[in-house]
Amino acid sequence: MASALLTASPDRIATAARRVMARCDELAGISAAADRIERVYLSPEHARVNRLVAEWMREAGMSTHQDAAGNQIGRLDTRGDDAALMIGSHLDTVSDAGRFDGIVGVLMGLEVVRLLREPDEAGWRSPLPFAVEVAAFWDEEGTRFGKALLGSSAVGGVWDDAWWQLVDAEGTTLRQAFVEFGLDPARITEAARRPDELIGYLEAHIEQGPELHRRGESLAVVSSIASARRFLLTVEGEARHAGGTPYDMRRDALLGASEAALAVERLCRAEHHIIGTVGQFEAFPGGVNIVPGEVQFSLDLRGEFDGERDRVWGRLTAELDMIMRRRGLRWQHREIHNAPAIACAPLLQDVVRAGIGATTTHTRDEAPVIFSPAGHDGMALGGLTDIGMLFLRNPDGISHHPDEAVSTEDVARGIRALAESVLHLAAERRA
Amino acid sequence: MASALLTASPDRIATAARRVMARCDELAGISAAADRIERVYLSPEHARVNRLVAEWMREAGMSTHQDAAGNQIGRLDTRGDDAALMIGSHLDTVSDAGRFDGIVGVLMGLEVVRLLREPDEAGWRSPLPFAVEVAAFWDEEGTRFGKALLGSSAVGGVWDDAWWQLVDAEGTTLRQAFVEFGLDPARITEAARRPDELIGYLEAHIEQGPELHRRGESLAVVSSIASARRFLLTVEGEARHAGGTPYDMRRDALLGASEAALAVERLCRAEHHIIGTVGQFEAFPGGVNIVPGEVQFSLDLRGEFDGERDRVWGRLTAELDMIMRRRGLRWQHREIHNAPAIACAPLLQDVVRAGIGATTTHTRDEAPVIFSPAGHDGMALGGLTDIGMLFLRNPDGISHHPDEAVSTEDVARGIRALAESVLHLAAERRA
Repeated sequence: MASALLTASPDRIATAARRVMARCDELAGISAAADRIERVYLSPEHARVNRLVAEWMREAGMSTHQDAAGNQIGRLDTRGDDAALMIGSHLDTVSDAGRFDGIVGVLMGLEVVRLLREPDEAGWRSPLPFAVEVAAFWDEEGTRFGKALLGSSAVGGVWDDAWWQLVDAEGTTLRQAFVEFGLDPARITEAARRPDELIGYLEAHIEQGPELHRRGESLAVVSSIASARRFLLTVEGEARHAGGTPYDMRRDALLGASEAALAVERLCRAEHHIIGTVGQFEAFPGGVNIVPGEVQFSLDLRGEFDGERDRVWGRLTAELDMIMRRRGLRWQHREIHNAPAIACAPLLQDVVRAGIGATTTHTRDEAPVIFSPAGHDGMALGGLTDIGMLFLRNPDGISHHPDEAVSTEDVARGIRALAESVLHLAAERRA
Repeated sequence: MASALLTASPDRIATAARRVMARCDELAGISAAADRIERVYLSPEHARVNRLVAEWMREAGMSTHQDAAGNQIGRLDTRGDDAALMIGSHLDTVSDAGRFDGIVGVLMGLEVVRLLREPDEAGWRSPLPFAVEVAAFWDEEGTRFGKALLGSSAVGGVWDDAWWQLVDAEGTTLRQAFVEFGLDPARITEAARRPDELIGYLEAHIEQGPELHRRGESLAVVSSIASARRFLLTVEGEARHAGGTPYDMRRDALLGASEAALAVERLCRAEHHIIGTVGQFEAFPGGVNIVPGEVQFSLDLRGEFDGERDRVWGRLTAELDMIMRRRGLRWQHREIHNAPAIACAPLLQDVVRAGIGATTTHTRDEAPVIFSPAGHDGMALGGLTDIGMLFLRNPDGISHHPDEAVSTEDVARGIRALAESVLHLAAERRA
């Protein structure tokens, strides 16, 4: 068992975990829809949640501000350096979401601050040798404007001005939405942090997959965040009358695209740690009695390593060439996203491993290490500072769905592990 | 060679064919869009085209009226019976249509009337023993309200009052569109004809398929109009996070539906004269990074014979059960259309065969006989009167597309054959 540095009693941790769960329930009630959870970027719900979370941050002894991108930031100053360890995750959701994805990581960050602070004459402080910030990002999911990691990209200094023209389903541009929310697009660069302001970024998140559930483990060290490429593919054939066109004269784009979707599954299943998903798929012109002349579909391709993922893409393009040639179809693709795998920093992996070790009977080396096929805010911060992540068991791996779950016991273990990680990092910095 | 009854000179027929082609061009210019042909039911283009075609009908010696469903009807009285042979087709189009589908049949009907009429003291008359009507139907394609054969259904007396609630893409109901066009929904039954008013229905139409083109023939007798069933199918799985859900935990509705579309092709290709088409296909929720939890797709299943078609549907349902069970998916279907095959009347097949025989070196028995996998207005009239059809060669079988074509020479042969058919029918009636 790794050395435990945190002195908090099991009762205090249990209380913290129950508060996290109760607050997840409370935030679930702040939704654009009565019958499901939906909280998107720059919405009235965004403003309401930020006000509420800012209260909780102040209650935890932090100073607070909403940054130029609408992220809610809390800061706990210490008697040490001004440079801060940032603990964060996101508060926006997909449509018809669960109540834990992102949210639980922000709220666990607040509990860690409560555990590690102490009062002094200047207010709440911490004995840590660095400041601690809790960052609540918007929007990680990309639900409203199609582009994910907007808030963390602003903080990471990788905001792209082309995004201002992104439009939501109502035709509102990101720029208009900023103004309507009360933010000034001209000041977006003020959200960006300098490398010397941060000593690292730590995030706790539910796994969004079944690995820990299958292994019977509560927590894992994250080794890296998957490399992901996204493509929009178009298959072109010929729209023809469904009745009068015999099979040997058809160039049916739908049948070609159906074969393509099945080829994605077949080629990716043959590999370890490569996952391809066709999530969007629509046939045109879409008449009941017209052979589809065109299909547009998306491909999301992820892997632990960039090279392996790119080799699968290469094999897939050869396969699609063959399918489409055989069917007299043309195909083309446009890459809309290409994120390299982001490795978690060795030091932060070590302190998370130590944190987990302190909560369990594992020796340091036994703590599970898994890579994250799902994207996280840390991807946008990887160019700014070191990142580290802690995963919590997600029963059945159900996420982006109302059935998404995490147990109070695992949240308690996670809070302890995250606090221990911070203390182990402090010990490393002091040494 | 069958006996030729028509005395018109080749020059006069050639002039008639050129006029048909010129008028197809003229009607192509009356479109809702500048860059393509689109003329839908109860639109401003519908009204303009009816006014123009009514002029042409009067010029051909006919009395005219627009019926209670918006169909344009011309009538040539004779010195014979009041009961009329109706020659018809439709003037509405699909979106981005060709210029001949339906239109050429209406215009050929007008030329046949010109060839068979003669002036007398009461105006234009015909020596035929029955009246002749030319019916220009709206809407055969179903482009605007999704339901095909509306105008001919009104004439056939098979209008369904449930259709009043059909809505177009703008949310306008069929009832509102009637009123806006200047028609009275309460009078729809006035469009219905009594069986004793008609002696039969003849329609000339481009084949919308490649059979005649492949055989090097200009014209064919139609034996029957295909039986068609249409289904909307839903495949249900589970929407999950694309990154975090390994393949063995996915219940991906898109992959099941893709297999289903390919199974439709495989099972139908194994049969003679069965054609299945998946024309609509959409995945939900349609997020780039979400495993599709649901797919909705359409199936259009046609065959020359009802029984054969239904046996293929039976095999297909067994196959879908197997696919979906293997993938942990559910599927269901809703039948949205079920039309039995409509046989052309033996007498009208005979007179069309005679008409074709009179234009070529074929003996009567050699004229090609093909069934129509595509639907036609005759399907809605089959319960009212006998129907017969004449197909014109359609190069490459391209229809419902701007490249749709028919040659002036084939139109000339078709006009002659259709006029001969009417004269042979007259001879049969007199005998």
